[in-house]
Amino acid sequence: MSIKELGEFGLIEQLAKNTIVENKSVIIGIGDDAAAVVPRAGMTQLLTTDMLVEDIHFKLEWITLFQLGYKAMAVNISDIAAMGGYPKQALVSIAIPAQYGAEDIIELYSGMKQCCREYTVNIVGGDTVASITGLVINVTVLGEVFPDYMVRRSGAQIGDVVAVTGTLGDSAAGLDILRKEISGIGANNLVQAHFLPKPQVAVGQILASCGATSMNDISDGLASEINEIAKASGVGIELIASNIPLSKDLLNYAGAKALDFALYGGEDYQLVFTISPQNYNKIAQQQKTDIMITKIGQVCNNHEVVLIDDQGNRQELRPQGYNHFR
Amino acid sequence: MSIKELGEFGLIEQLAKNTIVENKSVIIGIGDDAAAVVPRAGMTQLLTTDMLVEDIHFKLEWITLFQLGYKAMAVNISDIAAMGGYPKQALVSIAIPAQYGAEDIIELYSGMKQCCREYTVNIVGGDTVASITGLVINVTVLGEVFPDYMVRRSGAQIGDVVAVTGTLGDSAAGLDILRKEISGIGANNLVQAHFLPKPQVAVGQILASCGATSMNDISDGLASEINEIAKASGVGIELIASNIPLSKDLLNYAGAKALDFALYGGEDYQLVFTISPQNYNKIAQQQKTDIMITKIGQVCNNHEVVLIDDQGNRQELRPQGYNHFR
Repeated sequence: MSIKELGEFGLIEQLAKNTIVENKSVIIGIGDDAAAVVPRAGMTQLLTTDMLVEDIHFKLEWITLFQLGYKAMAVNISDIAAMGGYPKQALVSIAIPAQYGAEDIIELYSGMKQCCREYTVNIVGGDTVASITGLVINVTVLGEVFPDYMVRRSGAQIGDVVAVTGTLGDSAAGLDILRKEISGIGANNLVQAHFLPKPQVAVGQILASCGATSMNDISDGLASEINEIAKASGVGIELIASNIPLSKDLLNYAGAKALDFALYGGEDYQLVFTISPQNYNKIAQQQKTDIMITKIGQVCNNHEVVLIDDQGNRQELRPQGYNHFR
Repeated sequence: MSIKELGEFGLIEQLAKNTIVENKSVIIGIGDDAAAVVPRAGMTQLLTTDMLVEDIHFKLEWITLFQLGYKAMAVNISDIAAMGGYPKQALVSIAIPAQYGAEDIIELYSGMKQCCREYTVNIVGGDTVASITGLVINVTVLGEVFPDYMVRRSGAQIGDVVAVTGTLGDSAAGLDILRKEISGIGANNLVQAHFLPKPQVAVGQILASCGATSMNDISDGLASEINEIAKASGVGIELIASNIPLSKDLLNYAGAKALDFALYGGEDYQLVFTISPQNYNKIAQQQKTDIMITKIGQVCNNHEVVLIDDQGNRQELRPQGYNHFR
């Protein structure tokens, strides 16, 4: 059905279904001038927003609307995870090209709602407007965090361990596979990592409560995130190249270039953090099978960010994240 | 300077200047994975978002980037006003076309910051991305409201007075003037009303604390807003055409058609509200010179929304807001 036939209000009525998955915190969801929510007493509120633009951030030849919706929500939830917080409420704005039917937007929302169910996030509001060209999606997420556990980017201490969750580079390799239109061993897992990233919310909370001193989610590649932490914290960081965790699928696909995907690729949505060696050891000893953390380096008292290879060679590690402003 | 030369982080550093106008509530502003803010204890949090798309919502031949920035912020603040709330924090996402220089975005932000200063709102985060075509701006505002004073759309009671703040139709007449490229008596005031709407935050709080039973900001024309209140509240509303407040500038410009601008034009960002006659009279008696409210009708026990003209003729009042989905 066309959106014109259904009408903007008819469309919103469809989209508003099943948007509240945790109703204790919601007084007003979709349908008034503003949403109204109740924060938990004593919690600090977290706010983050991300805009995804067609043909800049995604190509609809490659990604389904369901996957795109899931991802648009996930990238925001990941920012809350990086602070050690709980994602709570989301607002969704979409600019819709003329050729889209109501079903397309409902499908896009299905992906968002799936992600919201997995992370217990309510969609409480938004805006639906027309686009003269491509699809634009903006998601804002409100989260909350125990004030004592909030982890900034700027708290890395000299002597801290640098560590990451999960494995890195899969998503970027997945994008490479899509670009080159190849298939092969493990290709599907890599592409799935690109399409359906899993924000590390529970792990972020554990790391925060166990004394992580700084944390970033890995959206622009490890090199970029490490530089951000070093700059914000006023410290240097040394990474051991051979310690950076890479999946078998990535190694099979990329061989000697696997590390480049991890360092410069982006969109992993894993976490990189710093923490005292004592606290790191405590977590490492308690690691459950579903939490994977790997020590990849240390914080040092110069202002250099360096990568040390197997031969002990040190090279400056610069961010090489793609710059959309060419 | 081009954004490429300045770099995304260089641009963000420029944009982040003077974004915190009230620092007690802000722990982290622009520059981490998420902003961190502290709500006032016991307050309900309000969330609203609006997306503005070039050539759908604005044309840059008509509006300056400063005005556009101001307006993009104001329309969100107006949604908080319509709940009786205090706007507090804003997030700004912009998709920037390739031909824009850094100065253009800084100018757009100047307008937002001006509006934020006037309404004591901090810009605490956002996203800057590239656009393959036009400019897209998404603003999210977090506000707060005393729980007992929050005004929904759905609370209109039979017997209530229906009233509005300010005068209506000026902004729509301003847009008409821009479309027709005319100038004349009062034209400048009407165009200014279109460019720089003034959200009724302080008045909204007074109305909320004095017992307003329902409230909307007038973004899509009075007819549309009145229908929304009637539908959400399950009541009928009768409006007296001759009571609807119109400015001299509008009457000079539009003559007999002035009322149509007020009913169907939109973008006034005044408030329409319902309230018991007793409470209305209390406010009306206390009206200060800087608060203008006008009784325009009443809530009745059928489900009709009607306009009554000077001859006592009743006609159904339907929303005729522009539908962007054609």
